[in-house]
Amino acid sequence: MKIALDAMGGDFAPEAVVEGALLAAETLTNDVQIFLIGDEDTVKNLLQKHGYTGSRVQVVHASQVIGMGEHPTKALTQKPDSSIAVGYGMLATKKVDAFCSAGNTGAMLVGAIFSVKQVEGILRPALASFIPKLSGGYGVLLDVGAIADCKPEVLEQFGEIGSICAENLLDIKKPRVGLMNLGEEEGKGTMVTQPAHKLLKENKSINFIGNIEGRDLFNDKADVIVCDGFTGNVILKMAESIYDILREKNITDPFFDRFNYEAVGGSPVLGVNGNAVIGHGVSSPTAICNMVHLAHKMAESHISEKFRKYFSA
Amino acid sequence: MKIALDAMGGDFAPEAVVEGALLAAETLTNDVQIFLIGDEDTVKNLLQKHGYTGSRVQVVHASQVIGMGEHPTKALTQKPDSSIAVGYGMLATKKVDAFCSAGNTGAMLVGAIFSVKQVEGILRPALASFIPKLSGGYGVLLDVGAIADCKPEVLEQFGEIGSICAENLLDIKKPRVGLMNLGEEEGKGTMVTQPAHKLLKENKSINFIGNIEGRDLFNDKADVIVCDGFTGNVILKMAESIYDILREKNITDPFFDRFNYEAVGGSPVLGVNGNAVIGHGVSSPTAICNMVHLAHKMAESHISEKFRKYFSA
Repeated sequence: MKIALDAMGGDFAPEAVVEGALLAAETLTNDVQIFLIGDEDTVKNLLQKHGYTGSRVQVVHASQVIGMGEHPTKALTQKPDSSIAVGYGMLATKKVDAFCSAGNTGAMLVGAIFSVKQVEGILRPALASFIPKLSGGYGVLLDVGAIADCKPEVLEQFGEIGSICAENLLDIKKPRVGLMNLGEEEGKGTMVTQPAHKLLKENKSINFIGNIEGRDLFNDKADVIVCDGFTGNVILKMAESIYDILREKNITDPFFDRFNYEAVGGSPVLGVNGNAVIGHGVSSPTAICNMVHLAHKMAESHISEKFRKYFSA
Repeated sequence: MKIALDAMGGDFAPEAVVEGALLAAETLTNDVQIFLIGDEDTVKNLLQKHGYTGSRVQVVHASQVIGMGEHPTKALTQKPDSSIAVGYGMLATKKVDAFCSAGNTGAMLVGAIFSVKQVEGILRPALASFIPKLSGGYGVLLDVGAIADCKPEVLEQFGEIGSICAENLLDIKKPRVGLMNLGEEEGKGTMVTQPAHKLLKENKSINFIGNIEGRDLFNDKADVIVCDGFTGNVILKMAESIYDILREKNITDPFFDRFNYEAVGGSPVLGVNGNAVIGHGVSSPTAICNMVHLAHKMAESHISEKFRKYFSA
């Protein structure tokens, strides 16, 4: 298996990425090759600095870098030799089985749609996040920022996409799907969540359990939590801030420690013809390592193939 | 000053309400009278049980009760002698300066609009919540559930309503207003938050500081956080669940302890011609006592008069 990793993406790139790549190589099976994409000299120097002499971590040269603040579409068009563009090029031509980056989130999302393209039948690809459960394990929250405004049909499909994600990446059978709403009762909600509830309820291919509320995020009601990207983004950033506050206060707890983004390493892009993971901008080597593991899990489970099969049926 | 209190509202009513009313009477100045509205015999028996012989807590009979699960409009129409209807009747006829209840939230909201009516010029009254800040004190989050779908103009007005709330109830001068969004940059957001940002920015009567994110809820960026009722409701319930989880884990901390709804006691209804507070369904005597204090603060600050002046100008 071959995984491409953007060496230049993230606030602490390329140092943290190279270190994370080496950690991933150590912890993944021997058949996994990692391609670090970025400025060849810089990355090779860093590998040398770490005394790396193996062949499982290789360098692919990319002369350009998309900055964290750049406009996604513009940057991708103007920088065809950027590490993100090169990475997606390798993914699109099947030179690698997965591509991951802790760089510009927008460019990673747009790049996925430009290069490997969304799966036919999928209205809008989603960005998912794994939310720790009090009972252990994780749930899938989607969308967490790819699509701010979602039509009811898009939320319905997030129920399907999230179910496939939970089955394949979290090994949950018949995942329970909940719709984030402002009340449990069926009639509650917005002009979007009300019809979305109806669509999800009528969809026989998923295990819809109804509305859930903000208080149900961490309990055991649902394995997949469906919401628009605006709501998901607010939830995710609020959860991150809670973790940061607890850490600043030196309060440690096995449950809250799992709020740490490092533990999962990234958000999978779901619904495109290829396996892509977007990491947190502040990614540490541990986070990078876990992002590569997540990309590996995506490739291993053939999740994008499963999206294709499901949505073409 | 006269404050009406729904003796029958809340999961632990009337016992917890009567106890809370007595706590409030003890802690408020002597000029404050509390009117407990509910079944006269039941409430009087409870007052007797507590050995109360004073005159500052009085009972007003109401023969009906609106249950927590009842449809607000239907219940208010069919139960004109319910404690909520009687309370709003007293507020509308100026027999009391404020009315509060931990009962049916929907009925409390609809009742406010039916009886005292929204202030002229206000598009949609809002329900606000006080969010603890890491730096001490509280910020105002609105709306937290009154209006699920908000037009940009409504969000703009929430900026004004929230500012008046922060000035009068939290004594914050020139409160900083932030718009909850999925990115700090001006261009980010939904079809609603993008134009709302523009309107808030152009509104010279408020101190708009721009977009804030889910991670800024507890920091010192904004005193007033504007969002639609759907987002606010999700945030509020998520914060409550975090508090519950910490308490279950016996993790105590001065900051997180202030997540406890009991400390504030309720959510003010803002933008109607009268002072109304809605308490949490699970309100304890302490919460009820603090809800009465909040109602007192609203009346004392003449906040609804200030809404009238502001929006008629």
